Amino acid sequence: MNERELRELPRDESLRLLASVAMGRVVFTLQALPAIRPVNHILDGGDIIIRTHLGAAITSAADGDGTVVAYEADAIDPDDHLGWSVIVLGTARLVRDEAEVARYSAMLRPWVFGNMDHVIRIHPEVVTGFRLMAFSEPIGSSEH
Amino acid sequence: MNERELRELPRDESLRLLASVAMGRVVFTLQALPAIRPVNHILDGGDIIIRTHLGAAITSAADGDGTVVAYEADAIDPDDHLGWSVIVLGTARLVRDEAEVARYSAMLRPWVFGNMDHVIRIHPEVVTGFRLMAFSEPIGSSEH
Repeated sequence: MNERELRELPRDESLRLLASVAMGRVVFTLQALPAIRPVNHILDGGDIIIRTHLGAAITSAADGDGTVVAYEADAIDPDDHLGWSVIVLGTARLVRDEAEVARYSAMLRPWVFGNMDHVIRIHPEVVTGFRLMAFSEPIGSSEH
Repeated sequence: MNERELRELPRDESLRLLASVAMGRVVFTLQALPAIRPVNHILDGGDIIIRTHLGAAITSAADGDGTVVAYEADAIDPDDHLGWSVIVLGTARLVRDEAEVARYSAMLRPWVFGNMDHVIRIHPEVVTGFRLMAFSEPIGSSEH
């Protein structure tokens, strides 16, 4: 069993990793309970844009002044557990501008057709990323 | 672009799918904000057992009488978006019994060594699963 280490990633690198994958999971509160839905995403101008068909749960929460959600994406190998995870805390707002909705809808392929879907913009406030790496020979480390 | 459809899965099949993968994401509330951490898991006696090293965030919440968390696992193809997702809502409690901790620790390989970690048991209350499938020729459907 090889050891591995967890390295925190800077914000820029975290958002780049997030942008490099097509899907993630939006985390919100629904009727005072924790809720999570897998969705696909793009990044646009530093914001995370998602399109969800899974009911009105998040869209109703993201209406009005917006609501705080978490967004997570990862790429972790199921066998060796190496990879990365990025967690964003931000404000989610429903995209209402029709031109924006049309533009994002063209960029974000929905998963299921025929269901009502919505476009939501998440503005990242806190970005936390880490990478799980195989433990390498220490370079200038005094810990080992 | 092929159409696809979303099918809800029964509880038993959802838990079987969850047990078929090694990792998922635990969703909880931290300082009144939505939080999520990727973890690895096993199923034991119908409960989800996780071992987490990522700080005391969830363990402090799961202490005492337990706390409601969501747990999500999925296997969705990034290209065609086909696959499944299972979302469990349940009560999380810290495993304190030393024999149980030892047994689960042997079954659940931690991702990072040397960090303090805890074993948490999540008892599923609401289990929601769906599968995204390629849209097949309608059988007795009047929609197409």
